[in-house]
Amino acid sequence: MGEKRICVRGGTVVNAADEFRADILLEGERIALLGRDLDMDADETIDATGKYVFPGGIDMHTHLDMPFFATATSDDFHTGTAAACAGGTTSVIDFAIQAKGESLASTLETWKAKAKGKAVGDYGFHMAVTDLTDAVLAEIPEMVALGVPSMKLFLAYKGALMVSDEDFFRTLVTAGENGALVMVHAENGDVIDHLQRKFLSEGKTEPRYHALSRPPAIEGEATGRAIALAEVAGAPLYVVHVTCREAVERIREAQDRGLPVHGETCPQYLYLSYENYLEPGFEGAKYVMSPPLRDASNQAVLWKALGDGTLEILSSDHAPFRMADQKILGKDDFSKIPNGAGGIESRLYLLWTGGVEEGRISRKKFVDLVSAAPARRFGLYPRKGVIAPGSDADLVVWDPTVEHVLSAEAHHMAVDFNPFEGIRVKGRPEWVFRRGETVGRSGNPVGEAGSGEFLPR
Amino acid sequence: MGEKRICVRGGTVVNAADEFRADILLEGERIALLGRDLDMDADETIDATGKYVFPGGIDMHTHLDMPFFATATSDDFHTGTAAACAGGTTSVIDFAIQAKGESLASTLETWKAKAKGKAVGDYGFHMAVTDLTDAVLAEIPEMVALGVPSMKLFLAYKGALMVSDEDFFRTLVTAGENGALVMVHAENGDVIDHLQRKFLSEGKTEPRYHALSRPPAIEGEATGRAIALAEVAGAPLYVVHVTCREAVERIREAQDRGLPVHGETCPQYLYLSYENYLEPGFEGAKYVMSPPLRDASNQAVLWKALGDGTLEILSSDHAPFRMADQKILGKDDFSKIPNGAGGIESRLYLLWTGGVEEGRISRKKFVDLVSAAPARRFGLYPRKGVIAPGSDADLVVWDPTVEHVLSAEAHHMAVDFNPFEGIRVKGRPEWVFRRGETVGRSGNPVGEAGSGEFLPR
Amino acid sequence: MGEKRICVRGGTVVNAADEFRADILLEGERIALLGRDLDMDADETIDATGKYVFPGGIDMHTHLDMPFFATATSDDFHTGTAAACAGGTTSVIDFAIQAKGESLASTLETWKAKAKGKAVGDYGFHMAVTDLTDAVLAEIPEMVALGVPSMKLFLAYKGALMVSDEDFFRTLVTAGENGALVMVHAENGDVIDHLQRKFLSEGKTEPRYHALSRPPAIEGEATGRAIALAEVAGAPLYVVHVTCREAVERIREAQDRGLPVHGETCPQYLYLSYENYLEPGFEGAKYVMSPPLRDASNQAVLWKALGDGTLEILSSDHAPFRMADQKILGKDDFSKIPNGAGGIESRLYLLWTGGVEEGRISRKKFVDLVSAAPARRFGLYPRKGVIAPGSDADLVVWDPTVEHVLSAEAHHMAVDFNPFEGIRVKGRPEWVFRRGETVGRSGNPVGEAGSGEFLPR
Amino acid sequence: MGEKRICVRGGTVVNAADEFRADILLEGERIALLGRDLDMDADETIDATGKYVFPGGIDMHTHLDMPFFATATSDDFHTGTAAACAGGTTSVIDFAIQAKGESLASTLETWKAKAKGKAVGDYGFHMAVTDLTDAVLAEIPEMVALGVPSMKLFLAYKGALMVSDEDFFRTLVTAGENGALVMVHAENGDVIDHLQRKFLSEGKTEPRYHALSRPPAIEGEATGRAIALAEVAGAPLYVVHVTCREAVERIREAQDRGLPVHGETCPQYLYLSYENYLEPGFEGAKYVMSPPLRDASNQAVLWKALGDGTLEILSSDHAPFRMADQKILGKDDFSKIPNGAGGIESRLYLLWTGGVEEGRISRKKFVDLVSAAPARRFGLYPRKGVIAPGSDADLVVWDPTVEHVLSAEAHHMAVDFNPFEGIRVKGRPEWVFRRGETVGRSGNPVGEAGSGEFLPR
Repeated sequence: MGEKRICVRGGTVVNAADEFRADILLEGERIALLGRDLDMDADETIDATGKYVFPGGIDMHTHLDMPFFATATSDDFHTGTAAACAGGTTSVIDFAIQAKGESLASTLETWKAKAKGKAVGDYGFHMAVTDLTDAVLAEIPEMVALGVPSMKLFLAYKGALMVSDEDFFRTLVTAGENGALVMVHAENGDVIDHLQRKFLSEGKTEPRYHALSRPPAIEGEATGRAIALAEVAGAPLYVVHVTCREAVERIREAQDRGLPVHGETCPQYLYLSYENYLEPGFEGAKYVMSPPLRDASNQAVLWKALGDGTLEILSSDHAPFRMADQKILGKDDFSKIPNGAGGIESRLYLLWTGGVEEGRISRKKFVDLVSAAPARRFGLYPRKGVIAPGSDADLVVWDPTVEHVLSAEAHHMAVDFNPFEGIRVKGRPEWVFRRGETVGRSGNPVGEAGSGEFLPR
Repeated sequence: MGEKRICVRGGTVVNAADEFRADILLEGERIALLGRDLDMDADETIDATGKYVFPGGIDMHTHLDMPFFATATSDDFHTGTAAACAGGTTSVIDFAIQAKGESLASTLETWKAKAKGKAVGDYGFHMAVTDLTDAVLAEIPEMVALGVPSMKLFLAYKGALMVSDEDFFRTLVTAGENGALVMVHAENGDVIDHLQRKFLSEGKTEPRYHALSRPPAIEGEATGRAIALAEVAGAPLYVVHVTCREAVERIREAQDRGLPVHGETCPQYLYLSYENYLEPGFEGAKYVMSPPLRDASNQAVLWKALGDGTLEILSSDHAPFRMADQKILGKDDFSKIPNGAGGIESRLYLLWTGGVEEGRISRKKFVDLVSAAPARRFGLYPRKGVIAPGSDADLVVWDPTVEHVLSAEAHHMAVDFNPFEGIRVKGRPEWVFRRGETVGRSGNPVGEAGSGEFLPR
Repeated sequence: MGEKRICVRGGTVVNAADEFRADILLEGERIALLGRDLDMDADETIDATGKYVFPGGIDMHTHLDMPFFATATSDDFHTGTAAACAGGTTSVIDFAIQAKGESLASTLETWKAKAKGKAVGDYGFHMAVTDLTDAVLAEIPEMVALGVPSMKLFLAYKGALMVSDEDFFRTLVTAGENGALVMVHAENGDVIDHLQRKFLSEGKTEPRYHALSRPPAIEGEATGRAIALAEVAGAPLYVVHVTCREAVERIREAQDRGLPVHGETCPQYLYLSYENYLEPGFEGAKYVMSPPLRDASNQAVLWKALGDGTLEILSSDHAPFRMADQKILGKDDFSKIPNGAGGIESRLYLLWTGGVEEGRISRKKFVDLVSAAPARRFGLYPRKGVIAPGSDADLVVWDPTVEHVLSAEAHHMAVDFNPFEGIRVKGRPEWVFRRGETVGRSGNPVGEAGSGEFLPR
Repeated sequence: MGEKRICVRGGTVVNAADEFRADILLEGERIALLGRDLDMDADETIDATGKYVFPGGIDMHTHLDMPFFATATSDDFHTGTAAACAGGTTSVIDFAIQAKGESLASTLETWKAKAKGKAVGDYGFHMAVTDLTDAVLAEIPEMVALGVPSMKLFLAYKGALMVSDEDFFRTLVTAGENGALVMVHAENGDVIDHLQRKFLSEGKTEPRYHALSRPPAIEGEATGRAIALAEVAGAPLYVVHVTCREAVERIREAQDRGLPVHGETCPQYLYLSYENYLEPGFEGAKYVMSPPLRDASNQAVLWKALGDGTLEILSSDHAPFRMADQKILGKDDFSKIPNGAGGIESRLYLLWTGGVEEGRISRKKFVDLVSAAPARRFGLYPRKGVIAPGSDADLVVWDPTVEHVLSAEAHHMAVDFNPFEGIRVKGRPEWVFRRGETVGRSGNPVGEAGSGEFLPR
């Protein structure tokens, strides 16, 4: 057979629950063999001695080329997935966001067009449903058939993305019947809206009022509400970007009762805190995202929840906006600051450093959180998320000894600041393979635009 | 002094935390003395030997003469408070229900007019706010000044009484600033509405679908939501008619965190269950109330919550509708059955029998639940709720040995069925005094219409 | 009748659950009347305007004239109960401590003899059982008959007071059968003994090693063990001097499961902490008591447990030893420092100040913790613990406006230091009556030695 | 190389967290390769199409050839490990039980001699320490060096195996310092001893009194005690044969607090219950084991604890005694019935059937519970417990379609009854390899006595 054969030799393979020394033979786009001291002929041999070999990272919460009023997130599918690959993430699942009045089918086409010819990493989509008519509800089975069996609804962003409890509930019912998974942005939009207007009317316009208008109690509330509605609907639920004790407790309780409720958090909630909003000038705007950064005491709660499985995935919620011309739109009104920041490239660095290096989680758990768990939950397993014969040849060869400092200067995301600026991280992906093709080298992107494929799930 | 002096001699006085043998001298409308072997002259002497003497019951959740579409609850302030007095309840706090577009002040006047000249027991009001404009919000301080410092909002009854989260939230803020107490009917109206329409569209019209469209999970949900919003608003909260484990847990948790969250339950949730909806024919309609009767396993949860203080009050939620011409309106559509049943007269019997006689609570706790706690929580203490010098001479002389069977035939409420029909109860109020006047005798009403007074709180 | 009549006029009566303005007429040793504006003839009239009137305090955990090796606690029944009365405590229940080989009957006689002719306050006894033979077990019914229906066992003090699990268990069985209440000192004596020897062998002899050899985990452990054994034995349990989160959680859990498990804490655990052991020189010895003072974070846990009823009583665990010639015995070996400190006089001051004045508990709860609850739990109610007709005329007239600073110089206990030295407290008992006799006046003792009576329970 | 090469082709490999289709090449005693469609030369090819391929089971709680008074468990290392291999378990860790006065070194030699020349499966040892002198304590580092880094202590069996709290505590300290793991049999021996004597003195001699003398509360108690002592000692803890809610809660709580506390349960506690003791005649004796079988409601608690990781291992506690001449010793006295039953062969069948087939756990979790988790916890990983290149060639080829009924007639253990008699199970090991050698075939043992090796850990 004429397929290219690459042998990754001498490394320690780390899967979600197992870790062992093995050589790996890649054949074309797939993993062919795992063995000790493979003496196969190979077209290329990589020396992974002293390094760990992971399955490629999967970031199942990104917002690439996402419209936002007159602008859009600053990374498109090329720059975004290239930066992802540089950092060890070879697949993303992005949110295709329904415009008012648009069908899901059309929305999906729009997003596929955004990615095609641009993506370096592989990509799938979730639907973000914002206008729930009966016709839209009727499209859910079709979406499942098209490989998009997950949809996000918002209980926040009143007047924009927010859906009513009734629409949320009937989506859960329909999703449950069709084997689709409902994801929820859980904050109480009514309270937020009221507090935003109150603060603005009092002349409180600085970035920190973004956080103060979204207290953790109402994330806990909306999380509990979403769980109760899912329970009555008999449907599973996935809670995105969990940030605080209040929400973690609701999820843990539901799981203790045996309900199929799942959740994720993101590196920003593990590393940053409300204090960041108090940075001088308009710097706090960098951290304007929803839910907002919390009191630092929540960081330990989230680490624990990752460790004990209450939260099963670490995603980036990558949604970059430039300070220079985008964040600045909210200079005089925190509610106009575009929500989000960039993290698609730094996710593995941060979890390795804060998790593995600081002894909070094992290497196996690391792989679970960034690759295996998202693959399982979102229907990519065992094609992705594991190093096993037959799986896609998505590999990260990780050198645990290299250190560097995160910065906007050094990163490969198309955005003019890095919320993790100045944090020293350990570990670096020396080689990154996506379906057998090299897409990352020593922390730099090297893949080709358009080589990424759509992943039906 | 020309005031009438009554001596209640030889009984055992039971207050919320103390129980002791004492004679009591009533002088006019007040308690004058407590002593051993009082040898005062008295105009009348009651022999309470072998009996318990309680402060008069306070039922802080009633719906007398409440409009409901073209009809109204079947007890007005005369028949309702007379029956209450017969059963040992000498004060009620009724809900004055705002009509759409009406001011609170006007609503209060309407309800005062309903009571005036009719009530036998004393009466206060809560406002039930259903149309929350800025003008209405601005009336709250005035309501407090007028002695109506509590208001109920509904998270259920979509399209009718239900308020949005935003309106609920801003009421909490305003109430908290003005020392008023927000009460909440906690069920998720959106989900109920959806399930009702779904059942009806499937031809499921029988009474039990009333219950199935209001599952306990969404009572728990709305309870948790109300608590979270109260927490953010910095306001206390009172949860009416708690029926299930899900809601009890939310309340207990809030209390454990030190939040000022309080709750009540009602005898029907302690004695009856979902099984009652399965009674033959249209009999299940008797039990159509909101929240509905639950699986019987919740009864133990509620008894425990009363015992340990998580729920602090037992009210009746008295809302009687006749089967003959009122409940029957929902013969072909459970959603048209008037919600509610009568219990203003049977409350003490049921709590004594199921609580004290069955060893679940002490006599002191009994007095706390039916009299002292509502007096304290709703601003009537120590005028009401305690047998002490200077307090109102509201007394119940309770004979623990008399038994009878609850029935529509024997009761004094103006309604043609009794949801507790056939239950044998122990104990009976032999004498009932309201401000020194006899309003109950051996379980029968004897007071005069119009002798009851408005209770500003 | 020739009995002396005292009228306490104009005060606010505070019972465990009720508070109201009333005059009180004392007739001889009993309360005769409560009323408004009593215009009786009285031999003496006390003006209590602006003051609170409580039932006399009951301290159910004291060690008066308790032998300890060659010495004894420094307060005998005269000095101890006089100081108690000065501080508003009119009854104590002291521990009669069985010597090895002695019968309980003989022990009781010994302790009665210690009190007779000396006590100013009334007194009852618990038995502290340290040598549990079959003969001793057989004495339990007799002890109940003699009015001593409670006994303490120690799971600590290995080689001295400690009993085996088997002896503890069979005492529970016998006590349960005879309606007696087992009290437990819950610390794991084996672990303590091991750690003490370890520290001493390492030359660690300072007072703080007393605390380090008794970590909170092993108080939690022994508490859980005692509860489990009581559950299997089908007996109620009372846990003395609870100090830490670990023990509180075990008790709360047992109560949640409906087990008859009760507990107390003491002012020292609310006010002092491990930091006190670090005071310079040998000062730390003042605070050597068992269990030891804990990390300050436990104080909030204990306040909360008092507030929510998990711990129902505040006792003093009064066990004073002089620094000069008693504590000093452990100068070179912390394990030889006599365990205990004096607090019989300061209990009400401290709870009022830290509890009522700082808004943690109500006045009613204050009365419950220091008087009503101990009376109920230990069989003195309603003779003691309540202001009601027929009850003993044990009253405290409390002036909430007076302040003073606690100090060894000013206190009336026969001990040369005060562990609460320097703490400013609010409130003072202006008059203290014990069965109608004045035993305290403006914080000073005025009663007569020998006027106190034995209280069979 | 002359090593034998076996190719297992076409099966689905199941590891603790991953499942994928792969062929496996065994070379001598090790796994050489995993790949898709391996076209290697092999000496033997196994067709595993439609079958699952697991790592060999590890039973880390067995009692082979264990002395018991004048007799011994009925399986020796030959019959026991042969039966184990037949059922898919290729390694055991057995308890070497110290006799009074014997050194640990000598005990280990004794047990090695029992196994040598007999074992078919591989075997390691834990020490069961029953006589804890300073000399014995001093042997712990040596035991660790000899590959026996785990020791069990008993808090039950008073007068025989039981150690004092002090000895338990100092073992924990020493073990913690030496990286050894203390395992605990957690029941309160004092209470059991008392209840046994009580029942016997009342003529209650039947098998069920075995259970009634060991209530679950005292398993919960001892578990909590062991955890507290481990916490103070700073040592990890492993709780063997957890049977009830009370113990599970203690373990879960400890884990929630981040303590290194681990636990196991056994199939008998998942399948059998207290009801079995009521079988007619002396049949109840079959189920006499310690802790005893519990009320059936505990089964769901244990399944849940296995599912959520609170209990991480399923072991057999294999301790077979014949009814005919061994169990019968307790005919007139339940306390003389040898404790234990045989389950080394049925463990995988029962977990697969009750767990995987009934939807309680995934196949991956199954592998974790019976193989990967014991390998990790007890130092055999990644040599055992995973199918990976370089690991021991211990494989089970499992046919999920074959059913059979468990019975003494059909089983291969040397004991005349099967506690699971009559239970129909699904799944069967078609081939079992231990280091490349076939030791099981279609549920039958085929290995050679003495081919098993000692496993230092």
